[in-house]
Amino acid sequence: MNTKDSFRIGQREFTSRLLVGTGKYKDLNETREAIAASGAEIVTVAVRRTNIGQNPDEPNLLDVISPDRYTILPNTAGCYTAKDAVRTCMLARELLDGHNLVKLEVLGDQKTLYPNMRETLTATETLIKEGFEVMVYCSDDPIAAKELEAMGCVAIMPLGSLIGSGLGILNPHNIRLIMEDARVPVLVDAGVGTASDAAIAMEMGCEGVLMNTAIAHARNPVLMASAMKKAIEAGREAFLAGRMPKKAYASASSPLEGLIHS
Amino acid sequence: MNTKDSFRIGQREFTSRLLVGTGKYKDLNETREAIAASGAEIVTVAVRRTNIGQNPDEPNLLDVISPDRYTILPNTAGCYTAKDAVRTCMLARELLDGHNLVKLEVLGDQKTLYPNMRETLTATETLIKEGFEVMVYCSDDPIAAKELEAMGCVAIMPLGSLIGSGLGILNPHNIRLIMEDARVPVLVDAGVGTASDAAIAMEMGCEGVLMNTAIAHARNPVLMASAMKKAIEAGREAFLAGRMPKKAYASASSPLEGLIHS
Amino acid sequence: MNTKDSFRIGQREFTSRLLVGTGKYKDLNETREAIAASGAEIVTVAVRRTNIGQNPDEPNLLDVISPDRYTILPNTAGCYTAKDAVRTCMLARELLDGHNLVKLEVLGDQKTLYPNMRETLTATETLIKEGFEVMVYCSDDPIAAKELEAMGCVAIMPLGSLIGSGLGILNPHNIRLIMEDARVPVLVDAGVGTASDAAIAMEMGCEGVLMNTAIAHARNPVLMASAMKKAIEAGREAFLAGRMPKKAYASASSPLEGLIHS
Amino acid sequence: MNTKDSFRIGQREFTSRLLVGTGKYKDLNETREAIAASGAEIVTVAVRRTNIGQNPDEPNLLDVISPDRYTILPNTAGCYTAKDAVRTCMLARELLDGHNLVKLEVLGDQKTLYPNMRETLTATETLIKEGFEVMVYCSDDPIAAKELEAMGCVAIMPLGSLIGSGLGILNPHNIRLIMEDARVPVLVDAGVGTASDAAIAMEMGCEGVLMNTAIAHARNPVLMASAMKKAIEAGREAFLAGRMPKKAYASASSPLEGLIHS
Repeated sequence: MNTKDSFRIGQREFTSRLLVGTGKYKDLNETREAIAASGAEIVTVAVRRTNIGQNPDEPNLLDVISPDRYTILPNTAGCYTAKDAVRTCMLARELLDGHNLVKLEVLGDQKTLYPNMRETLTATETLIKEGFEVMVYCSDDPIAAKELEAMGCVAIMPLGSLIGSGLGILNPHNIRLIMEDARVPVLVDAGVGTASDAAIAMEMGCEGVLMNTAIAHARNPVLMASAMKKAIEAGREAFLAGRMPKKAYASASSPLEGLIHS
Repeated sequence: MNTKDSFRIGQREFTSRLLVGTGKYKDLNETREAIAASGAEIVTVAVRRTNIGQNPDEPNLLDVISPDRYTILPNTAGCYTAKDAVRTCMLARELLDGHNLVKLEVLGDQKTLYPNMRETLTATETLIKEGFEVMVYCSDDPIAAKELEAMGCVAIMPLGSLIGSGLGILNPHNIRLIMEDARVPVLVDAGVGTASDAAIAMEMGCEGVLMNTAIAHARNPVLMASAMKKAIEAGREAFLAGRMPKKAYASASSPLEGLIHS
Repeated sequence: MNTKDSFRIGQREFTSRLLVGTGKYKDLNETREAIAASGAEIVTVAVRRTNIGQNPDEPNLLDVISPDRYTILPNTAGCYTAKDAVRTCMLARELLDGHNLVKLEVLGDQKTLYPNMRETLTATETLIKEGFEVMVYCSDDPIAAKELEAMGCVAIMPLGSLIGSGLGILNPHNIRLIMEDARVPVLVDAGVGTASDAAIAMEMGCEGVLMNTAIAHARNPVLMASAMKKAIEAGREAFLAGRMPKKAYASASSPLEGLIHS
Repeated sequence: MNTKDSFRIGQREFTSRLLVGTGKYKDLNETREAIAASGAEIVTVAVRRTNIGQNPDEPNLLDVISPDRYTILPNTAGCYTAKDAVRTCMLARELLDGHNLVKLEVLGDQKTLYPNMRETLTATETLIKEGFEVMVYCSDDPIAAKELEAMGCVAIMPLGSLIGSGLGILNPHNIRLIMEDARVPVLVDAGVGTASDAAIAMEMGCEGVLMNTAIAHARNPVLMASAMKKAIEAGREAFLAGRMPKKAYASASSPLEGLIHS
């Protein structure tokens, strides 16, 4: 594949379609190695849980994951209200010298980490007014996705399944409904558990996939990061290559013809 | 990944776990380019449909897919009886100067191309007596797979779904039963339709995947060949890396706990 | 099964767990016969599309589906804003002499008929203040479901898949998350396409299922209504009976043990 | 549904499409009650494990499941060779006064109870020569199914999944391929775990379903037997009623149109 298969988020252009988080690794060294192996260009950081300068005397993640090499994407993990999420984005912008690209997540409860969509919509409105470029973690609700896009989000990021569950894309139909109408990039955020899950997301036509636990909680995170890099590229290329039609059997002249109720 | 992740079929050692066919391409040039892009080391050739020397005055596939570069794997596609299949393997061995590694397929009917397992078992017995190393296309019947292994097959190659269908692996449970007991490599042969299908086969622990239509009948076969190469590697690496456990939600301390009837 | 397996919606008690609509039938006679065959006790009526007295000179559905025999459940199909939905419920209450049990649906767009959850939450708040008992059609968002319950809805009715799609329950995991926390009945509303879909909903532990198209658009609606009645009962009984554990094979002493990555 | 929806196995006509086994119950009383609740007309008995007269001094199953009320279907469970299976059928015919309808099963191993298809084909040939009417438990191999039918089997009984597994129908595509070509009844034998599995088999167009563990190992076998009776009827009626088409959304004028790669 040539190098022109890039995509844009807001004003930025990217080649790698795998976005990764920094949580749940054994240590900073493993974090660094796994992220390098993933080939990611965008690395998301939970501002409430990670030191990116708030505590000047402690180890700073940005010393390991350098903003010179990676686009740092601050996220609002751990926020359960619009207010908290907005405040967290403000803090991130300050710490990152005016960097205004953020991943918004406003969670519904600690048990499921499912988004609270009402609060998410409220926070989105505020953040966009405040000049942020908002990539938004959301449910797979196609109507809410359209509202978020109408508000001006630069990327819609529906969950495949619950954060940290590894259950894959449970409702591809809804993700497709979202993509069918979206004019901004749609990226699957959360739920990917293994390489084929990532490939499936890309084969559906998603612009990218964001993951964290699937890499960090694999037995061998660095090898899994490499697997994910290849899976994302494989899925993307398969999407662009145009898969063969499914058929009930090879001799059927049209897809799935022949079989009773197939 | 280091280069040591090889596998053996009989006495031969291979690194690429993607095996490809040569049928259904637009022309020999596309065949050559797609196979190169796939990274395959083993290329299977339907002796009854492809000139590998039977017709000395016509274009010879081996001029394009050189035995110096690839392990040529003659197959018996188009054979519906043990007798025909055996005769075809004999012919191939003669044409290929004593090369004794073959892929046996004895088909049940033209509509489904499903294997005729009775004839397959009979042909296997004869071929092994005749000194062939037999890789055998078979149904996903775990008992038949054990019989084939007991006879001395060097690889068991159950279908994922019908040849040319692109339906993926319809019964992963049976493939797992076959792998659980096998001491020779198990490769999925037939049914893969897109990159994620290939990744899934590898994540299950298969040693490799053989495909033809999924590449040749993609809109862009060369790009799909590249996608498949990456998908096979992604699936293999994910298998070796050890995926994260599936959970009903992130906060569940054990896999899938908590959900009623999950 | 004895007759005691009833359930409550608000103050009312019901035995049949199949709720049906009245739309899309060939004529009123077919409507009547199919509903009779379904055994339904609750029949939902789209107030905006059905004459239940608004037009005194035209045929009135209630002459065919008598409020003496059935609990009439007015619904707000066709409403795209909270305001419209509230107004429609008010009209229904007037026409039905103070009957206050309604099914709220506020739709997001005409293409998908997916609920607009923001408007749904707003309408719910108003209706409950106005003294309605609200059964609410909603997405399968577990956080929104909890908000709706906290507002005082008497039943949560997540979609299985889009209205009129017949795609079944696309995300059983979310429906289970909703049920796990709910203290009011959860009924699957929309998406059921055939009998097994209805049985699956009941086996998951749902209190009931509401459907319309699956019956009305079957080739033989009256026979399908009978099928649905039996499927609902079958699924309910299977849920109560407690299914056998799934096993990788019969000789496994614990569920799914033995299989690599099963 | 009227009472004319019967089907034939050989010369016999049946109305109930649920066939049940007698194994794994707590006691004979539970066996009797569950079978009565199932509405089954055909009850299969493992001749090697059940006393149907071999031991004249011990309790005889036929005192509980009377041949006057039920069609007793002797089966060869526990046989691993054609020879054993044939001998068992002979014994059964003797014990049952010349009754010649049998269910043949020749198993491959104790772990999976998957059929040994080579031995099954051999036993079938012998039994038919000996004048038996053979209902045959088999894999879901469509070529083997055709061979069995050509030999003269009166019913083809492919497994849905392994005996005692409760995993449902793992490969509906193969069962459909078998049905597409069969002129004798196809019944799913083995694998059904709960009511919806049975409904799905019937919706696919199977003539019937045979089960044992799903009822006997439910927490409440008698209630599960009732659930299965209703599920079989529901699935059959849904099949006859002709389900609605699946659509990507209600407003799509043709099935599944509109969605990218749906």
